[in-house]
Amino acid sequence: MSFGEIDKLAVSTIRLLAVDQISKANSGHPGAPMGMAPAAHVLFSQMRMNPHNPDWVNRDRFVLSNGHAVALLYSMLHLTGYDFSIEDLKQFRQLGSKCPGHPEFELPGVEVTTGPLGQGISNAVGLAIAQANLAATYNKPGFTLSDNYTYVFLGDGCLEEGISSEASSLAGHLKLGNLICVYDDNKITIDGQTAVSFDEDVAKRYEAYGWEVLHVENGNEDLNAIAQAIAQAKKSTDKPTLIKMTTTIGYGSLNAGSHAVHGSPLKPEDVKQLKQKWGFNPDKSFVVPQEVYDFYQAKILNPGVAAEKEWNALFASYQQKYPELGAQLARRLAGKLPEGWEKVLPTYTPADSAVATRKLSEFVLDKIYDELPELMGGSADLTPSNLTRAKDAEDFQPPASGLGTYAGRYVRYGIREHAMGAIMNGISAYGAHYKVYSGTFLNFVSYAAGAVRLSALSGHPVIWVATHDSIGVGEDGPTHEPIETLAHFRALPNIHVWRPADGNETSAAYKVAVESTSTPSIIALTRQNLPQLEGSSVEKATKGGYVLQDVANPDIVLAATGSEVSLSVDAAKILATKGIKARVVSMPDFFAFDKQSEEYKLSVLPDGVPILSVEVLTSFGWGKYAHQSFGLNRFGASGPAPKVFKYFDFVPEGVVARAEKTIAFYKGKDLISPVRSAF
Amino acid sequence: MSFGEIDKLAVSTIRLLAVDQISKANSGHPGAPMGMAPAAHVLFSQMRMNPHNPDWVNRDRFVLSNGHAVALLYSMLHLTGYDFSIEDLKQFRQLGSKCPGHPEFELPGVEVTTGPLGQGISNAVGLAIAQANLAATYNKPGFTLSDNYTYVFLGDGCLEEGISSEASSLAGHLKLGNLICVYDDNKITIDGQTAVSFDEDVAKRYEAYGWEVLHVENGNEDLNAIAQAIAQAKKSTDKPTLIKMTTTIGYGSLNAGSHAVHGSPLKPEDVKQLKQKWGFNPDKSFVVPQEVYDFYQAKILNPGVAAEKEWNALFASYQQKYPELGAQLARRLAGKLPEGWEKVLPTYTPADSAVATRKLSEFVLDKIYDELPELMGGSADLTPSNLTRAKDAEDFQPPASGLGTYAGRYVRYGIREHAMGAIMNGISAYGAHYKVYSGTFLNFVSYAAGAVRLSALSGHPVIWVATHDSIGVGEDGPTHEPIETLAHFRALPNIHVWRPADGNETSAAYKVAVESTSTPSIIALTRQNLPQLEGSSVEKATKGGYVLQDVANPDIVLAATGSEVSLSVDAAKILATKGIKARVVSMPDFFAFDKQSEEYKLSVLPDGVPILSVEVLTSFGWGKYAHQSFGLNRFGASGPAPKVFKYFDFVPEGVVARAEKTIAFYKGKDLISPVRSAF
Repeated sequence: MSFGEIDKLAVSTIRLLAVDQISKANSGHPGAPMGMAPAAHVLFSQMRMNPHNPDWVNRDRFVLSNGHAVALLYSMLHLTGYDFSIEDLKQFRQLGSKCPGHPEFELPGVEVTTGPLGQGISNAVGLAIAQANLAATYNKPGFTLSDNYTYVFLGDGCLEEGISSEASSLAGHLKLGNLICVYDDNKITIDGQTAVSFDEDVAKRYEAYGWEVLHVENGNEDLNAIAQAIAQAKKSTDKPTLIKMTTTIGYGSLNAGSHAVHGSPLKPEDVKQLKQKWGFNPDKSFVVPQEVYDFYQAKILNPGVAAEKEWNALFASYQQKYPELGAQLARRLAGKLPEGWEKVLPTYTPADSAVATRKLSEFVLDKIYDELPELMGGSADLTPSNLTRAKDAEDFQPPASGLGTYAGRYVRYGIREHAMGAIMNGISAYGAHYKVYSGTFLNFVSYAAGAVRLSALSGHPVIWVATHDSIGVGEDGPTHEPIETLAHFRALPNIHVWRPADGNETSAAYKVAVESTSTPSIIALTRQNLPQLEGSSVEKATKGGYVLQDVANPDIVLAATGSEVSLSVDAAKILATKGIKARVVSMPDFFAFDKQSEEYKLSVLPDGVPILSVEVLTSFGWGKYAHQSFGLNRFGASGPAPKVFKYFDFVPEGVVARAEKTIAFYKGKDLISPVRSAF
Repeated sequence: MSFGEIDKLAVSTIRLLAVDQISKANSGHPGAPMGMAPAAHVLFSQMRMNPHNPDWVNRDRFVLSNGHAVALLYSMLHLTGYDFSIEDLKQFRQLGSKCPGHPEFELPGVEVTTGPLGQGISNAVGLAIAQANLAATYNKPGFTLSDNYTYVFLGDGCLEEGISSEASSLAGHLKLGNLICVYDDNKITIDGQTAVSFDEDVAKRYEAYGWEVLHVENGNEDLNAIAQAIAQAKKSTDKPTLIKMTTTIGYGSLNAGSHAVHGSPLKPEDVKQLKQKWGFNPDKSFVVPQEVYDFYQAKILNPGVAAEKEWNALFASYQQKYPELGAQLARRLAGKLPEGWEKVLPTYTPADSAVATRKLSEFVLDKIYDELPELMGGSADLTPSNLTRAKDAEDFQPPASGLGTYAGRYVRYGIREHAMGAIMNGISAYGAHYKVYSGTFLNFVSYAAGAVRLSALSGHPVIWVATHDSIGVGEDGPTHEPIETLAHFRALPNIHVWRPADGNETSAAYKVAVESTSTPSIIALTRQNLPQLEGSSVEKATKGGYVLQDVANPDIVLAATGSEVSLSVDAAKILATKGIKARVVSMPDFFAFDKQSEEYKLSVLPDGVPILSVEVLTSFGWGKYAHQSFGLNRFGASGPAPKVFKYFDFVPEGVVARAEKTIAFYKGKDLISPVRSAF
């Protein structure tokens, strides 16, 4: 590429559009957009994308990991022809606008939601994994269906966050040459100079991870150097690349180079002098010279539209030549599961033997692995404990490693839960109907809380296989025994949090999770064996809560999940011998239950009967369903699991005693079901 | 040091004690203890500690970051004279024993609870910071009161976790020469060879962080090399040191070098051959040759007892020569706050102006900073937003940086929330009454969930200053607006989760947090201004919940926290104009409230009146106090904060409408207070 006046003008336009958005909103972060505008211009000018169809599968992906620089992204999306008008930009950071304060996944041209630092670069590793897998699975000689790059902008904050270390180390191991990151080395964070806390040698650290590291010394102005670095990065096919680009935060501003320009709008006189300096009318805002529009149309929009057209033709002839693979990919691109896929899900009767739900989960994975080529699994180094690797699975590994291939669908994430969560989000966000699941101990899903939150916020339907879900962990003790974990995730909007009680419920959890298009799932599973229950079924369990075992005119309802369902069944038997009638309700997923009609919910948790929840986790949150709760509102203990359960009185007699007290307590009282809402 | 037969015997004894513990428990991780026994022997042989007084402030600290190797630690603690008998070791991993499945902080000789990977090394950075600060604050010529080292053992898992990257980068920046880490480079994790996911150049990465990196090639046997590396590390006074020690996991076992020895007991015949090979009776277990006891007594126990005695004498004369500092340190070592410290806490009346609670928090910090020399603050790069830096504060920085000194008490953590949490735990665990607080946005405390959990489990009374606590964040939008965060931490045992409504409640939160000896605190604070409330007081707020504004025979109770308390007060005024009597309850901290008597709780949340909670966060968990909840069970939105509040109907009229519906709904019903417990 060679650069001239039009490029300079375009860069100034980008900078001023960002500044104007922030000034109009009187809120935002001008510093990074001003520093990174040249990189955005050069990068976008050579990216392959069709702004008229932001979902085209073989587009290059762009991730703004320093999401607070979003005004830069909206500028680029507007200029290159995405569905962002100047009027949209004027609504920056206003309620209900198309230009919220950080990039959000559902917007056209936004690949992933960013803002929480370190997530974007880690999502990008997932986007790159998905591309490598798609290419290895479907590309054929003469049919390069997939060869897109994933580009990332990131700042110091992203590099300081541990999640980016995890993801970057893995990306180096996986030799993801399709991943190119531009690090805005502007030496400023909110606290001032990065020197106050961050003076590591970033280049050396990334070399240690196995990355190619390049340096652009003048990112403010040297478009050629930026272009050369990107070209060089693309040549590095077996290493991801970090381009360390030195810039001046708030380049052009009177406060350039200081943290004063990081997160506050520029002063009006500062904006004025910028516009004057760059040949714009200082009294006008949101100005785009026509030649800049024309330039981007010629350089990006037109070639992008043409590229997709060409790709569509290629894919059409691919479908002729490779009818099976072609149909499979076409199905995936249409976002559809194979017809009848769910028929392979195992079902059980009480005659079947007691099995740990983590093992029941493995049975499901073994069954669906071949059925769903879009399924990508993995584990944070607990494969033999999480039981997440289907028996036919191949590892996703660089071919040269001899450990697998890029067509493999099992990722060895290492002990990196947070990056695993973000990478799952990235794979899911790639499209092509990728369905992602990964395993760790339930307790360590908390390490990934930041990524799980973004799964829920963005609606990535990823699946956490979260084993060792209670004090049933036993000897490993309180550091490994979840107490608050399910409450934490149940409190998060838009996420299924399953705790199946047996095989049918485990199959139900997977059925809902796999069919979900915009809701992630956590499936909490036991280490210890559980019996197959009388009264469970896949269909009933998908409702999130149901009457497992009923009795006419119950004296009490026992509402339980997971391992405490069979415990409650045993307690109900003892209660029956005492003439006390107990209904047993299984509540495997609050989120699914909450979506049922009030009528249905009342049919499960009725008025007039005391409801006692039984769950060997915090009782926090059960007040929405139960009048009284038998839980574990303290940390667990180290010891053989059955002894630990007994110590905390989670035995049938312990449930019976509390049921009796609950009945006595509410005797003669007019009870209203907690599921009733007054408004 | 020179090594001979006794050292070899000691190493074999350590290995076999670990193996025997695990075999007897039939549970545990033999691989790492067997590989690291030589390092443990050499390290402990030169450590300064008094096993008879594990709390002596100037002891060297030892952190087992790979906490699953705990059998190694129990072996060492037994052999060196800590209060761990052979009988205790025989109870390894049994319920109620002194030898639980992972190291727990409350045990003698255990500096921090470990097991969740990456925490220990990060705690150790905190221990090293505390030492540097203590030395810089109290050491005088001829009076080296503090000069201990912090030693860490860690494995691949700790290095893969992002938290260790964060902490290690900061440790390099801070030039913590008192920190010495031994990395067990055994090339094995649970999934098999580390090559499946972890082939970065660890040494190079740590050099990039500014660490000294040494290599011991034969950690299985070469005691001299280990000793030399430790000696060399101690000479590196302005860099932390990583000793990369290559070992064989499960050294000596028939399965040595394979992941089969990582997490399962050795087979009986394997144990037998080990004992035979090392000259022990294959039919006996838990055998310690007397000469090994004698060796450790001479090498560690006796010198340790003498060292503390000497130190006590030194400190006595220090107190003579530096009466003020001496008395201060003596007070701190006694674990006491300065008499009447709480008198400096600001109090307010409704005549005082409306102020954001984050600003009210700053007022508190400004007041207590000079009062409490044990206070160490910091922020994850949000100082100007969190308002966490007291106006007299000096930064904790290496003196050569010119940015502060080690006597400074404000840590610039960088954008590293998880490490910040773990480092706070470490500083707190150091002793000398360190009181630690740090700031970030409430939403990003979730990044540190793993560390917060350990604060609560271990009882480190650290303080999170968690600002921007709701949709009041405004323009930054849903990625920065907490919804589930308070519920998450309220569900965790043993943690105060404050959301003060005004200045008096903010002072109350700090009062309880600072006086706490074994419970951490999160203080959630607003970005936006809140009025000073009629009816609030420090004393009432410390109860966690109280009647703020009362009325005879209320028709409804509005229970709220933080910014929704003044909203509820406004709603109550409107309700009064409609002839509806509303009591307003402020509930700044569930944990403190739950500790009150049932009588007190019923005096606040009585029978017979409908209780409506009002909090602009998830309503999850409010069922324990309220019959109905007005909350925000979805993600937030980007826009100016007042508009976002209005959009979600969190305005007085919105509360009024729901209050009226709640009253109508329960009309004529016999209501029981949710705080009543049946058992």
